Amino acid sequence: MSEAREKATIAKQAAHAMNRLTTEQKNEALLMMADRLLSERKSILEANAADLERGRQNGTSAALLDRLALNDKRIEAIAEGLRQIAELPDPIGIVLEERTRPNGLVIRKVSVPLGVVGIVYESRPNVTVDAAGLCLKSGNAVVLRGGSAALESNRRIVAVLHEALSRSAVPRESLQLIESADRSSVDEMLKLNGLLDVVIPRGGRSLIQNVVQNATVPVIETGEGVCHTYIDDEADPAKALDIAINAKVSRPSVCNAMETLLVHERYAARHLPALADALRERGVELRGCPKTRDVVPWMAEATEEDWSTEYLDLILSVKTVSGLDEALDHIRTYGTKHSECIVTENREKAERFMREVDAAAVYHNASTRFTDGFEFGFGAEIGISTQKLHARGPMGLPALTSTKFIVTGDGQIRE
Amino acid sequence: MSEAREKATIAKQAAHAMNRLTTEQKNEALLMMADRLLSERKSILEANAADLERGRQNGTSAALLDRLALNDKRIEAIAEGLRQIAELPDPIGIVLEERTRPNGLVIRKVSVPLGVVGIVYESRPNVTVDAAGLCLKSGNAVVLRGGSAALESNRRIVAVLHEALSRSAVPRESLQLIESADRSSVDEMLKLNGLLDVVIPRGGRSLIQNVVQNATVPVIETGEGVCHTYIDDEADPAKALDIAINAKVSRPSVCNAMETLLVHERYAARHLPALADALRERGVELRGCPKTRDVVPWMAEATEEDWSTEYLDLILSVKTVSGLDEALDHIRTYGTKHSECIVTENREKAERFMREVDAAAVYHNASTRFTDGFEFGFGAEIGISTQKLHARGPMGLPALTSTKFIVTGDGQIRE
Repeated sequence: MSEAREKATIAKQAAHAMNRLTTEQKNEALLMMADRLLSERKSILEANAADLERGRQNGTSAALLDRLALNDKRIEAIAEGLRQIAELPDPIGIVLEERTRPNGLVIRKVSVPLGVVGIVYESRPNVTVDAAGLCLKSGNAVVLRGGSAALESNRRIVAVLHEALSRSAVPRESLQLIESADRSSVDEMLKLNGLLDVVIPRGGRSLIQNVVQNATVPVIETGEGVCHTYIDDEADPAKALDIAINAKVSRPSVCNAMETLLVHERYAARHLPALADALRERGVELRGCPKTRDVVPWMAEATEEDWSTEYLDLILSVKTVSGLDEALDHIRTYGTKHSECIVTENREKAERFMREVDAAAVYHNASTRFTDGFEFGFGAEIGISTQKLHARGPMGLPALTSTKFIVTGDGQIRE
Repeated sequence: MSEAREKATIAKQAAHAMNRLTTEQKNEALLMMADRLLSERKSILEANAADLERGRQNGTSAALLDRLALNDKRIEAIAEGLRQIAELPDPIGIVLEERTRPNGLVIRKVSVPLGVVGIVYESRPNVTVDAAGLCLKSGNAVVLRGGSAALESNRRIVAVLHEALSRSAVPRESLQLIESADRSSVDEMLKLNGLLDVVIPRGGRSLIQNVVQNATVPVIETGEGVCHTYIDDEADPAKALDIAINAKVSRPSVCNAMETLLVHERYAARHLPALADALRERGVELRGCPKTRDVVPWMAEATEEDWSTEYLDLILSVKTVSGLDEALDHIRTYGTKHSECIVTENREKAERFMREVDAAAVYHNASTRFTDGFEFGFGAEIGISTQKLHARGPMGLPALTSTKFIVTGDGQIRE
């Protein structure tokens, strides 16, 4: 039996026991996990140092090493994340619907755990703890498969969490880490129908596409954001300036950052030069369509490829459009259905934009950077779904639940 | 371009226009579809007669021919189904959540269409109309791929529905039928990521497994029900008798019918002979475990295979258990997470059963045959989901929707 199948089988058995845990038992385990991470931080940092050293020897990029690196402050933040999960309401056992049928049957739809959640991710070791905490709180067992670059860190973190769990009411078997660095362990995991109830990929495009293309287990697709901000001719120029700068510059490496700016030709004529200067001053490389370059000649030329590129960097493509229709067309053609924004003082245009744009989140006069579980007030986030089934947009604890119909009768039979 | 890709591309364009339809426009189109089916029933019956004739020549079974056959009464029932869908509340545009954040952002979660729904099914031509109607009401375009045995019927039905749609506000392109009888058209359809938002298989095990194993598009798995009824030692024998007979006999060919009866040994000793006789009188073939056959010696012997078989027929496996724990174990091992029932007057045992059994629907003192969208009061049903993501159990119109976050600001940017 492969490691993935063996560990998923153990997790499935544990999932059954998770069903009987009380909210208090789950919260207690989360707090014990947080405490243990802090008291064991030295050994975690040692393991992390080994990963970093190996990474440097392999010529890993500075950006990747930064994602991989832990320090006292990051471990404290990770432990604090677990404490916050403990404070969130229990998503399990909520009666979502209740109806009494004419024949007297009482039908209740109640939230239940998904069962066993598989998570495939890359080098950030904080995902190991976040995912373990969120799955525990939602009553799920979890099978983690992190990137091989973080293997020593993940191994030590899971050992520490297991120590905490063995003193709690939560079975330590509910948390499983696949340690094989072999890519085939991922492929194996994606076919564990009957053992895994869902797989959630977290990472770059190629990781996500591999999961989507090869999984027979249900997947929640997360990911790519080619996000647009459309500045209308009836936009307030001050708001437009703030929103565009924030959407591009505040954190360019994340999926809710703006990648393409669409501007109405009348806005462009009056206000684009100032906005373009402001972006350039903040280190943004701008690439424009011909109409844009008529107004801002110093801008580089955008190619067809630019419109569908998620730069995740201080680069921005800019297109001047004749109006809302052309903006909607462009978003329909090149958007990834993540987050899209219109800046306008015209309410009708805003409503049309928000109705017609097909995306997880649509904004009127606010930065797309708000697409985030914490910013939306969910208190936690397991990822941002870009698919339409089950969960769409930022996923909090309820995205890790399923439902069950509980039907109470007194001998009813069907005609 | 293959037929599947071409038709899905047309459907996707139409889906965009569906977004702007009002409830009245959709309902009007549904009523026009119903009228047209009735006024064109002659041509539909002719096409159906051609399918039936071809089926008879190919040696198709009587059961399959019965599923395929249309007549005046069935067409009237199908048209009536469309009228009922018109009367259901519109599932689109409902504000499911609303919150105002401390920074003043208003975040609303609103129901939206999925986009383009693919349906792969077998020989019943009524599915063609039901699926078209439900998708229309939920604002979705639909790509249908019915069984080749019903091709002439489906072709004529879709032509009739197209005639109705072309007089309505709903684009006729929103309803697409793949006509190729080639199995490769299904395989092609299952990989249309970016064009289809979901595929729903409706049919037997091999059809569903083909879809689950080969789709890269998200799937809602429907299907198999190895449903159990557990009769406890504290059951009311009269209720137990009625429920067991109803669950097995009222319609054995459907997924919510009982396939295995579990009985407490004390119930078995006192009441199983009478129940077994009653089932035998109704034509049921019974297959028992050794302990069961000690009590009812005329019963055939059940093999290991029986416990995981969905007979869909007048056959029942019977197992005598020592109590609730063994019943729960058996269901965990052999159940398909569809519908499970406990018959008992002991409320604590009932609650434990309903909490611990992992299934779409769990019953206390009522027949599993109630697992059905109409019986649950949903007014319609697109299928019964046996997976845990997105929708579980009978799926009404809300299962054909997704959500969108609509965020309204006044210039907010993220810190």
